[in-house]
Amino acid sequence: MDMKFLKSSDEMGNKGQIEKLEKLAKLIRYFILASTTEAGSGHPTSSLSATDLMTGLLFGGSFKFDVNNPDHQNNDRLIFSKGHASPLFYSLWAAAGKLEEKELMTLRKFGSPLEGHTTVAFPYVDASTGSLGQGLPIGLGMALNAKYIDKLPYRTYVLLGDSEMAEGSQWEALQVASHYKLDNLVGILDVNRLGQRGETMYGHDVDAYGRRVSSFGWDTIIIDGHSFDEILDAYERTLHASDKPVMIVAKTIKGKGVSFLEDKNGWHGKALNKEEYTQALKELNPVDKSIRGEILRPGDQKSIKQVDRDVQEVAYRMDKAVATRKAYGNALVRIFPKFPDMVVLDAEVSNSTYSEIFKEKYPERFFEMYIAEQNMVGTALGLSCRGKIPFISTFAAFFTRAFDQIRMSQYSDTNANIKFAGSHAGVSIGEDGPSQMGLEDIAMFRAVLNSVVLYPSDAVSTEKLVEEAAKHIGIVYIRTTRKDTPILYHDKEHFVIGGSKVLQKSDEDIITVIAAGVTVHEALAAYEELKKENTFIRVIDLYSIKPVDERTLREAAKETKALITVEDHFLEGGIGEAVRSALAEHATSVYSLAVKKMPKSGKPQELLDYEEISMKAIVKKIKEII
Amino acid sequence: MDMKFLKSSDEMGNKGQIEKLEKLAKLIRYFILASTTEAGSGHPTSSLSATDLMTGLLFGGSFKFDVNNPDHQNNDRLIFSKGHASPLFYSLWAAAGKLEEKELMTLRKFGSPLEGHTTVAFPYVDASTGSLGQGLPIGLGMALNAKYIDKLPYRTYVLLGDSEMAEGSQWEALQVASHYKLDNLVGILDVNRLGQRGETMYGHDVDAYGRRVSSFGWDTIIIDGHSFDEILDAYERTLHASDKPVMIVAKTIKGKGVSFLEDKNGWHGKALNKEEYTQALKELNPVDKSIRGEILRPGDQKSIKQVDRDVQEVAYRMDKAVATRKAYGNALVRIFPKFPDMVVLDAEVSNSTYSEIFKEKYPERFFEMYIAEQNMVGTALGLSCRGKIPFISTFAAFFTRAFDQIRMSQYSDTNANIKFAGSHAGVSIGEDGPSQMGLEDIAMFRAVLNSVVLYPSDAVSTEKLVEEAAKHIGIVYIRTTRKDTPILYHDKEHFVIGGSKVLQKSDEDIITVIAAGVTVHEALAAYEELKKENTFIRVIDLYSIKPVDERTLREAAKETKALITVEDHFLEGGIGEAVRSALAEHATSVYSLAVKKMPKSGKPQELLDYEEISMKAIVKKIKEII
Repeated sequence: MDMKFLKSSDEMGNKGQIEKLEKLAKLIRYFILASTTEAGSGHPTSSLSATDLMTGLLFGGSFKFDVNNPDHQNNDRLIFSKGHASPLFYSLWAAAGKLEEKELMTLRKFGSPLEGHTTVAFPYVDASTGSLGQGLPIGLGMALNAKYIDKLPYRTYVLLGDSEMAEGSQWEALQVASHYKLDNLVGILDVNRLGQRGETMYGHDVDAYGRRVSSFGWDTIIIDGHSFDEILDAYERTLHASDKPVMIVAKTIKGKGVSFLEDKNGWHGKALNKEEYTQALKELNPVDKSIRGEILRPGDQKSIKQVDRDVQEVAYRMDKAVATRKAYGNALVRIFPKFPDMVVLDAEVSNSTYSEIFKEKYPERFFEMYIAEQNMVGTALGLSCRGKIPFISTFAAFFTRAFDQIRMSQYSDTNANIKFAGSHAGVSIGEDGPSQMGLEDIAMFRAVLNSVVLYPSDAVSTEKLVEEAAKHIGIVYIRTTRKDTPILYHDKEHFVIGGSKVLQKSDEDIITVIAAGVTVHEALAAYEELKKENTFIRVIDLYSIKPVDERTLREAAKETKALITVEDHFLEGGIGEAVRSALAEHATSVYSLAVKKMPKSGKPQELLDYEEISMKAIVKKIKEII
Repeated sequence: MDMKFLKSSDEMGNKGQIEKLEKLAKLIRYFILASTTEAGSGHPTSSLSATDLMTGLLFGGSFKFDVNNPDHQNNDRLIFSKGHASPLFYSLWAAAGKLEEKELMTLRKFGSPLEGHTTVAFPYVDASTGSLGQGLPIGLGMALNAKYIDKLPYRTYVLLGDSEMAEGSQWEALQVASHYKLDNLVGILDVNRLGQRGETMYGHDVDAYGRRVSSFGWDTIIIDGHSFDEILDAYERTLHASDKPVMIVAKTIKGKGVSFLEDKNGWHGKALNKEEYTQALKELNPVDKSIRGEILRPGDQKSIKQVDRDVQEVAYRMDKAVATRKAYGNALVRIFPKFPDMVVLDAEVSNSTYSEIFKEKYPERFFEMYIAEQNMVGTALGLSCRGKIPFISTFAAFFTRAFDQIRMSQYSDTNANIKFAGSHAGVSIGEDGPSQMGLEDIAMFRAVLNSVVLYPSDAVSTEKLVEEAAKHIGIVYIRTTRKDTPILYHDKEHFVIGGSKVLQKSDEDIITVIAAGVTVHEALAAYEELKKENTFIRVIDLYSIKPVDERTLREAAKETKALITVEDHFLEGGIGEAVRSALAEHATSVYSLAVKKMPKSGKPQELLDYEEISMKAIVKKIKEII
């Protein structure tokens, strides 16, 4: 069938424009119903409520996108924060002529790029969504990039559900977007009244949303989400926003367009069966399947890329202890000339994580994210989707705040090129007590598909590993320590993802102690202690916890009687389990020293002793075994 | 020294009252400075800004508390959401005569109950804080309990910092508290302008906070946080709140009372040295160390406790498959008569988690928490602090949203008697795709100190384990499955925390397959398949993943050639690693089948095959090994 593309421009006048949008909206509603009925599951009603809003956006002349080049730097961005409305998303691109109807019919089938919730398997999706309350922070990152970094004219639109406004992450993003005056960011709030199991907290009270969002510093436009007149007018107004992001609060009907679905509870996440589908089509008809909608092309402005430069060498004095968190800050400054796509974010603790060292040198590439970690991770994902390399830092413990955002970013695959730096790891932070101690961060970051987990023990290895992290495409976690630790490595030493360092080794080694970060120093002290008694141990600095250096571990397992892991982290999911999993198929004894008692306030050394992860505990354990 | 207790009543008239509060505030400021200087670290300036607010609360006549009985059911509750102001918290109780000055001087020392951030080691603390943005949800739980469950007159006060208002969890709590019309909940927002590394987003703009909080449905009272007149008036007004929670927004000065600290950046989290301390004392003097403040006693109203009753027996037909998530809902209803302290919360997915079965039967004990998981966990902690047994449910994946709240609850020790039920675990959910799949939930909950992790495979074991969870005091995670699974156990079968079931066993077993939940059925199918070829395997249902049944595992390790774990979860931190850790010191080969590839949409069985955790994959792996 030859497709007839309906122009996006205003030539046809307002009436012609609206007639066109009505036709396209019918086609899109047809696609939504056909594909979900074929799939036998999915979210038709949540798609139908936003159909007019999205048809008006893409085909009404405000949205600019080169449909043949989803990577065009000036394409406007569209994020479905309500990722379950994926049938609508796919149908929009079908209506734009970029998906065949038969491809649409693979929705939710194994191997299809059209997944149940929008994922990057479909090339018009930048970031995978489906866990609610995550789209706005991602959009914020993209808008921040356009306004302050790439200085490009593209605009970012985020479709939001009303249920998901209950998520705190939304309000984190709202406040930060307002703080940064992101007038290139538009939220479209689809107030369809009904959540999954019934009415939302505010039902159809669009003013309640309007008041809240305005109080967070946004311009708000309240409209009927099924009136193309009001929809087009609202988008037109967002183009003239100044210093404020804009939220279009749209009153809509869930299931709009099909009488027996409209505003009915009990239809969330349910596909129509064949009879219901036939009935629905009768109501929709006539649908003109020969039409397609045109989307306006963006301009060709380019951002000015900085030229790559060489970096300085690492230079630390061997006799002066330096905290790895400080080396992290130093490294950011050192490597930025080589990685000009770097952007640094911090959650209001830059003077503790030492990202402030970067902020002082490159203030235009540092963004304060305040104490709102979920939004920080989402923003980083948005920046990463636009080609940046975000380095984001807070206390290791507080990244747990954003585990859902971290978890979701793995599904954006290589679009999630985020480097997480968690400081204040473990009980070795001392007096501040358990709330501030990262003791489950290794477990959390290991449980992310294709992640890299690094845990340097001194300033030199930190510098080198931060650089490796910047080179690597994907999610990297770097764990740093609060207190100063002695320099162990020469400035020229080489570190790689998946590597380790054997710091003590002899033919007489009876036991291997595997440590990382702060416990490397305890293991070395244990070596010295035992050497006095003519007992020799092998000491491995396992700075790369994921991937792990299996070869070196296996060699140690063969050559020594047993392995002992020592970590300033809870036992579960930590270094011990990483080592055991690496050696799983080779029967090996791996003893674990880890944080096993309720942590508390005290001096770092008191706490390392108390938790039995100090030199003393290592020596004691070795004597027990041999 | 004999202490002179200053009365809390109004007998002395307004002028006398204020003079008294001024004297007590001086004493408290002295305690704050003395204890932090002695500790050499801590947060004096963040304590000083809130000193007048808290002195006015405790000793101004609004707050009711039996100081000799912190467990009195009618004691007003006080939560320091800004847990770093712990020197103030301890000093308040010293000023109430419940801590000696020399005890105060143990602040932050190893073994002292006075930790760097408020923890339950100190008996006047209900819930440990220190990760910001967590106090209000906890207070909400306590207020919810007072108003709707115990129907007691106690009131709940939460001291909030201005920096932490950036956390989304605050806004989750604000909206839900307003939704439930909690007029017995009072927030006290200490707007001291300065965060850790500089000014907050809104500085001293108290109206910005006022507008936002009001738009979320709270009454707000804006005051000068150092005027006892205004402070006392504000508390008096909160006593007359009706159907709305109240937020006192107080403009304060960080470091108030010591000129060289006042409103100065760079003093966050720093103690004074000896010289600075001497200088500060000069400004404070005279301090009357002989006085103490009286706190009014509460009344003696009691809540009406329901009488325990027997529960019905479990009854499932062996020939009808039932989803474990559904059995979870059934179990809640069945066991409630035996555990009348149960309260059920859900994050807007009760028709998926099946907590709706409970809601229908006991609507007065069910609270809709909407899509705001962080607040749900905090609320549960608050309820638990008041003696309730909260069962809280959402998709397993979405508990990651609240990892920081889960992590923090472990530090409230047995006060965190929370039962988490995560449904839709693993790739076996099918078409909805990765965003909805819980694949790191076992890793997350295992990495919680003293947690219990249960993963039943059929309806009967689910029922029994939900009952065990209710009996157990502490954090329990129950993982359920979306799809129907066959009944494996007779109604009388016995299940215990730390147990397992050997489902297939013979003298000819060559390999042991260890499974849990949905993979138990795959393992049993593999058993049948291999039996045809006269190959016998042992099959263990490891329904208790933490603690784990070491004895049975060790026996299997001895009696069969190798162990294979099979789990619908990522490899890291999951069942395989739990088994390996249990057997760590006994060299054993433990092969692991787990989710290792990027998950996607598809039919449950397609996905189990794709991830190689199905019957086929088990058979294949066994053939490889033998």
